[in-house]
Amino acid sequence: MTREASRPQGRAADALRPVRITRHYTRHAEGAVLIEFGDTKVLCTASVEEKVPPHKRGSGEGWVTAEYGMLPRATHTRSDREAARGKQSGRTQEIQRLIGRALRAVFDLAQLGERTIQIDCDVIQADGGTRTAAITGAYVAAHDAVTWLLAHGKIAASPLKDAVAAISVGIHEGQALLDLEYVEDSACDTDMNVVMTGAGHFVELQGTAEGVAFTRAEVDVLLNLAEKGIRELLVAQREALGLK
Amino acid sequence: MTREASRPQGRAADALRPVRITRHYTRHAEGAVLIEFGDTKVLCTASVEEKVPPHKRGSGEGWVTAEYGMLPRATHTRSDREAARGKQSGRTQEIQRLIGRALRAVFDLAQLGERTIQIDCDVIQADGGTRTAAITGAYVAAHDAVTWLLAHGKIAASPLKDAVAAISVGIHEGQALLDLEYVEDSACDTDMNVVMTGAGHFVELQGTAEGVAFTRAEVDVLLNLAEKGIRELLVAQREALGLK
Amino acid sequence: MTREASRPQGRAADALRPVRITRHYTRHAEGAVLIEFGDTKVLCTASVEEKVPPHKRGSGEGWVTAEYGMLPRATHTRSDREAARGKQSGRTQEIQRLIGRALRAVFDLAQLGERTIQIDCDVIQADGGTRTAAITGAYVAAHDAVTWLLAHGKIAASPLKDAVAAISVGIHEGQALLDLEYVEDSACDTDMNVVMTGAGHFVELQGTAEGVAFTRAEVDVLLNLAEKGIRELLVAQREALGLK
Amino acid sequence: MTREASRPQGRAADALRPVRITRHYTRHAEGAVLIEFGDTKVLCTASVEEKVPPHKRGSGEGWVTAEYGMLPRATHTRSDREAARGKQSGRTQEIQRLIGRALRAVFDLAQLGERTIQIDCDVIQADGGTRTAAITGAYVAAHDAVTWLLAHGKIAASPLKDAVAAISVGIHEGQALLDLEYVEDSACDTDMNVVMTGAGHFVELQGTAEGVAFTRAEVDVLLNLAEKGIRELLVAQREALGLK
Amino acid sequence: MTREASRPQGRAADALRPVRITRHYTRHAEGAVLIEFGDTKVLCTASVEEKVPPHKRGSGEGWVTAEYGMLPRATHTRSDREAARGKQSGRTQEIQRLIGRALRAVFDLAQLGERTIQIDCDVIQADGGTRTAAITGAYVAAHDAVTWLLAHGKIAASPLKDAVAAISVGIHEGQALLDLEYVEDSACDTDMNVVMTGAGHFVELQGTAEGVAFTRAEVDVLLNLAEKGIRELLVAQREALGLK
Amino acid sequence: MTREASRPQGRAADALRPVRITRHYTRHAEGAVLIEFGDTKVLCTASVEEKVPPHKRGSGEGWVTAEYGMLPRATHTRSDREAARGKQSGRTQEIQRLIGRALRAVFDLAQLGERTIQIDCDVIQADGGTRTAAITGAYVAAHDAVTWLLAHGKIAASPLKDAVAAISVGIHEGQALLDLEYVEDSACDTDMNVVMTGAGHFVELQGTAEGVAFTRAEVDVLLNLAEKGIRELLVAQREALGLK
Repeated sequence: MTREASRPQGRAADALRPVRITRHYTRHAEGAVLIEFGDTKVLCTASVEEKVPPHKRGSGEGWVTAEYGMLPRATHTRSDREAARGKQSGRTQEIQRLIGRALRAVFDLAQLGERTIQIDCDVIQADGGTRTAAITGAYVAAHDAVTWLLAHGKIAASPLKDAVAAISVGIHEGQALLDLEYVEDSACDTDMNVVMTGAGHFVELQGTAEGVAFTRAEVDVLLNLAEKGIRELLVAQREALGLK
Repeated sequence: MTREASRPQGRAADALRPVRITRHYTRHAEGAVLIEFGDTKVLCTASVEEKVPPHKRGSGEGWVTAEYGMLPRATHTRSDREAARGKQSGRTQEIQRLIGRALRAVFDLAQLGERTIQIDCDVIQADGGTRTAAITGAYVAAHDAVTWLLAHGKIAASPLKDAVAAISVGIHEGQALLDLEYVEDSACDTDMNVVMTGAGHFVELQGTAEGVAFTRAEVDVLLNLAEKGIRELLVAQREALGLK
Repeated sequence: MTREASRPQGRAADALRPVRITRHYTRHAEGAVLIEFGDTKVLCTASVEEKVPPHKRGSGEGWVTAEYGMLPRATHTRSDREAARGKQSGRTQEIQRLIGRALRAVFDLAQLGERTIQIDCDVIQADGGTRTAAITGAYVAAHDAVTWLLAHGKIAASPLKDAVAAISVGIHEGQALLDLEYVEDSACDTDMNVVMTGAGHFVELQGTAEGVAFTRAEVDVLLNLAEKGIRELLVAQREALGLK
Repeated sequence: MTREASRPQGRAADALRPVRITRHYTRHAEGAVLIEFGDTKVLCTASVEEKVPPHKRGSGEGWVTAEYGMLPRATHTRSDREAARGKQSGRTQEIQRLIGRALRAVFDLAQLGERTIQIDCDVIQADGGTRTAAITGAYVAAHDAVTWLLAHGKIAASPLKDAVAAISVGIHEGQALLDLEYVEDSACDTDMNVVMTGAGHFVELQGTAEGVAFTRAEVDVLLNLAEKGIRELLVAQREALGLK
Repeated sequence: MTREASRPQGRAADALRPVRITRHYTRHAEGAVLIEFGDTKVLCTASVEEKVPPHKRGSGEGWVTAEYGMLPRATHTRSDREAARGKQSGRTQEIQRLIGRALRAVFDLAQLGERTIQIDCDVIQADGGTRTAAITGAYVAAHDAVTWLLAHGKIAASPLKDAVAAISVGIHEGQALLDLEYVEDSACDTDMNVVMTGAGHFVELQGTAEGVAFTRAEVDVLLNLAEKGIRELLVAQREALGLK
Repeated sequence: MTREASRPQGRAADALRPVRITRHYTRHAEGAVLIEFGDTKVLCTASVEEKVPPHKRGSGEGWVTAEYGMLPRATHTRSDREAARGKQSGRTQEIQRLIGRALRAVFDLAQLGERTIQIDCDVIQADGGTRTAAITGAYVAAHDAVTWLLAHGKIAASPLKDAVAAISVGIHEGQALLDLEYVEDSACDTDMNVVMTGAGHFVELQGTAEGVAFTRAEVDVLLNLAEKGIRELLVAQREALGLK
C-alpha cells in the first residue's frame, strides 16, 4: 500500500468526485432526484403506490423496493437494451436487490402503512459507482416521497429512522482509493461497496477480489476510507434536503 | 371545427410547445441529444457500430435502426419496467419501428458503408408527443454521429440526404390542434402523427380516430397544421446544429 | 404520376382483385369468415366471451380486440412460427392492434354489454394486403357474432354503429395503384393503408414512404383511390351478409 | 366389450369418418395438403429448405421435422394463441415431436441430401384426431415435396422408403371404436394413437388410460382396429397422389 | 429375434438392473425416495399442498401432478440447465406429463380432498430408463405422502386405489431386452415404455421405432417382457414400503 | 455481544456443523462431490468442456464458471421449479455469480488453456449455508477435474494457485455465530458470507444487515470467526482430496 498512483483530474486518493444532487429533476414522481458522482449520473425516482406485494398484504406494513436500469448508451460502448433482450442481467438484479435492502434498512415499514415506495434508479451516464450513487440518491428521493406522504396527510409521522448512503473503495496497485471511477474500477485488484447509515453503522459491505485476494489489514484501510466518504455524502444529502 | 377551446398555458391552436434541443447531453455516444417539447423530454443517442444486421451483411450497405423506451416514472402513474416484465409492449415496438423508418428515409445506406447507426430514444419525462419528439431529436443525434464519422475519416461524404422531423396534430372538440400534450391527446377524437422531410415531403402519416371517424376535409386541415409545425422544427434542428 | 405500368393479370390501376367472402367457413366460432383478396386468404373468426379485460371490469361496457397470425408457409419462403420463437414480431403486434382499433370504431361498447368479441385473423395464404383483408373480413365475422348474440337473447339491440372496411393503395413508378399485391407492395415507393366506415369517414390512415417521400398531391390521389376501393368492399360485405 | 353404443351420424364402430385429401390447397409450399377426417381439418405443408440443423451439418444427410399449431378458434371454446402466450404447450410439443418421428421413419435421410423438409401442420378446425390426421396428411405433403425435388433435379431418386399413416382407436363403454371424434375422445376410458407404415409395421403406438386401465386383450382388439383403419388411409393417400 | 447379444455386466435379456429404493432420502418432503435402476438414480419427492389448480377449485377433488428435471451433469456430456435456458424442453414436458398421468391413474381424487400431491422427479445420474424409474419411485413417495396425510388426520381413508410401476423394453439386433440402459437405448431399433398397475392393467404404453418399424409379433414379445419386469418392480415397491 | 443463546444440537457458537465431503458421488462428471454442512447437502460437479465463452475465444485462456440450482423440495415448503417458471431468480443468479468469482480467484486461466471448467452446484437439501457449502465443495470438484486434465495429458501443470473455501457468520441476539443453519439465518440481525483462500486472504466478503445495522467492532468479530471456520474447511478439503 505504498505507491502513489495519480488519479484522473489530480484527485486525491481519499477524495470523492464532485457530488451534485438535483431534486425535482422530473415532474411526476413523488421524489425525483438526479445524483451525479463526477460523470456518473443516475436518475432516482420514488413512487408512492397504494398497494403492497403479496407477502405484505394484510400485515399493516408497507414495502420499499427498487429497480435499476442503464440506458443502452450510458456506457462507453453500447450495451443491449434489457427490455429488447427480454430479461434483466444477473448484474442488474444484484444491484436492484442491493438498493432495495439498503433503503429498507432505514425504514420502519409499520410506520409506512400498507403502501409501497417503489424506487427506480436509471443510469443516464455511467463512469463507475452507479450502484453507490443510486443508493445515495434514492435515499433523497425516498425522503421527498415521505415528505409528500406527510404533506398529504397519508401518514402522521415519518417512517424514516435514519439516512443511508453508499460508496465504493478499492485497492489499485497497492493504494487504497475512494469512489472509483470507471477506469480505476476495471483496474482494481479489490473493490468494495459499502452502505452505511447516518449513525455510522453498516448495512451492506461487499468486497470482491478481482485480481489478488485481500488481507485483513486492507479491509481495515478500506472501511476507514469508506466511512470518510460516506460521512461526506450524508452531509451532501442533508444539504440537498435543506436540513440544517 | 368551430369552437375555440383554450389550451394549457394559453397556447394558440397552431403553436408548438417550446422546443429545446441540447446536443452532447451525455458523453459516450457519437450523438447525444436531449429534446424537449414542453414537458416532454427524450434523450436520443446515436451509436456507431461497425457491424450490420444479417440482412445487410456483405451488401456494402449500412443500416439505421432505433429502439425506444420510457423510464417507469416518466409518466403520471408509474408503468411497469419492460425489462422486468421481460418484453416490450406492442406500443413500444410500433414506436421504435416508426423511428427507424423515419430516419432511414433520409439516409443513403450505401454511402453510410457497412456499419450501423443505432438510435436509442429514452423518454425521461412524458407529456404527450414522445414519438414525434424522439424522431425530431434522433435526426440531430444522427447528424452528430455522421459528423463524427466524417471527422474520423470513416466516410468521405455524408449519407444524409435531407433532414426529417415529426409532429402530432389532432382534433379536439371540433378544433384542430398542433403538437398535442398529454391531456389533449387523451381527449382528442382524432390524432395524427406526421413525419416530413426538409423538402416538405411525407415519410409517414398515421391518423387514428379514437372517437368519431374523420373526414377528408379534416385530413386537409390536419396536414396543413402539421406542415406548419414541422417547418418550425426543421428550423430548430438547423439552429441546434449551427447550420446557418 | 404518368407512366402506365401493367399490373399482373392485366388488372386496371384502380381495380380491386377479385373479392370472395365465405361465411361459416368453420363450425365453432360465432362468426367465421374466409376472405380472399385475389390470392390473399385470411380466416377471420369472432368469438364471444362472457368476460372483459381488467380495464373494463365493472364498467358495464364490453370490449372488442383482435389477434393476428400468419401460418409459417403462407408466404413465398417459410417464416418462423411465432409460437415456437416464443414471441410475436413487432409487425404482428402492429397489425393486430390496428385491427382491434378498426373494429372498435364501429362498436358501441356499452350496447355490447360486459363481454368481449375476440377477433382472430389468421393468414392461410399471403399475397399482399393481409391486414386490409383481415379488417374487411373481421367486420363480417363480428356482424355474425352480433347476430348470434341477438338470436340468443343476450343483447336486445345491435352494438354495431356502422360497417368498416380497409384497403391498401400505393404509388409504383409514379402510378397510383389500388389493392397492392405482394410484388407491387415490395416495389412501391409509397404505400398507404386506409380504414373507412360505411359513412365514408376515416378510422385509420397509415402512409409510409418506403423509397421516395410523397407529396400532398399524392396523398389526395391515394385517398380518392382508397375511397373508391372501400366503397366496393362495403358492397361486397353487405352482399355476403345478405343485406339488401 | 359388449355394449353397442351408437356413434354420431350412425357411424359403425369400425368405420373411419369421411376422409378428404386436397392437394395444392395453398400456392407457395412445395407440398400443401388439406386433410379432413370428418370435421377435423388440418392444413399440412411441406417446405424444402436448403439447410439442416446443427446436428446434421456436414453429415451429407438431410432432416425431416415438424411443427404443429391450432388456430385459436379451431376448438369449441377459444384457446389462447400460443404465439401471444409466448410458449408452446406441452401437448403441442408432444404432437409435433410425434409427427416428426413418424415422417422420419419412412425417409432415407442420406438419399434426401443435406436439406430439410419442414412440415407444418395447422389445425383449421378440430373435432378429435388432429394428430393422426396431421401425420396422414403430412405424408402426402412430403410426397409432393419429394416430387418437386425430383422434378427440379435436386435429387436423383426418392428418399421415401414407404408410406405412413395414423389413426386413433379407443374403448368407450366397453366398445372398441375407430377414429374417435371429439365427444368420443373425451368420454373414452382408453385411447390409442397408432402410426403404421405401408408395409404394415408400427412406427408409434401410444395408448393411454384416461379412466380404467386396459388389458392385454383390449390392446389386441385396438391394434386390429387400428390396422384396418390405417390400411384404408393408405389407400386414400395413394388415390390422392394418383398412384395406381 | 434370434441372436443373443451380450448385455453389460452379463445381464440376462429378461433381467432388471439391480433396483434400490431408499425412502426418507431427504428431510423436508412428505415423501422422499431415491430410486436406482442400476446407475440411473432419480430423487422423487411428493409434496402435499393445501391448494388445487384452477380447474379443480371448488370441485371437492384433489390433484396429482408431476415435474421432471435432470441435473446438468447427470448425463455423459453436460446438457444445458433448463432454468438458465429459460424453458423446459419438449422431452422434459412429455416425461412430466407422463408421470402425472401414471400417478393419477391410481388415485381417487375425490378421496384425496381438495389438495395437491406435487411430485418432483429429479435425475441425479442418468443411464437410461429415467422416466420409468421416476414413475416407479414416485409411487413410493406418493404412498409416503398419503401415509403422512392419514397420520395427520387430514384424510380418513387412503385415496390410493392400486400401485403403479413402469419399465422400458426394446428390441436390439432382433433380441427383446428388459430395462434398457443408456447404451442399449441408443442402439435399439424399437423401444417401448410400459406403465402398469398392481392389478396388471396398462396405464400407458408408448412404443417408438427409432430404426426399423416393428411388427405385431414384436409387440407381443415386448409386452410380455414388460409385464414380467413390472411385476418384479411392484414387489420391490411393497418391500420398500414394508407391506407384507 | 454478551448473551449466550443455545444453538440447535448444543453446538458451540464458534463450531462448524459436521462437514462431510464425498468425492465421485456421481459417475459422469470429471469432478463430482457431495458436500454436507449438517443437513445442508449440495452436489457439486465440475465438467470439462473444450470450448470457451465468446469473450475468451482466441485468447489462449480458459474460463471457470458456475451455475446453481435448488431442487424444488430441498426446502421446508416447496418452491417453484425455475425451469418451469422460465427464469432464474435474482437470488440464484447472485449465488452462481459468486461461486464463479470465488473459483476463478484460485485459477490461473492461462495455465488452464482454452477450455472451460463448468461448475454445477445443485442443492439436494437445504438448511442454511447452501452458497458457502457450494463454494467449498466446488473447489474439491474442480480439483478433481484438474487431476483428470493432468492424467489425460491435456495440461502439463495444474492451473490451481491455491485452495478456496467459504463460510457464513452472523450475529444473533448479540452473539456471533459460525456457520448459520436455517433457523439461525432467518433470525439473525446480520449475516456475512466470507470466501477465503488457503493463504488466508479474502476473495469475497458480503455482509448484510437484515435487522439492526452492524458496527466496525462486529465486523472484526465476524471476520475472526469466519477465518477460524474456513481454516477448518480447508483442512477438510485437503483430507477429502487425500492431500496429507
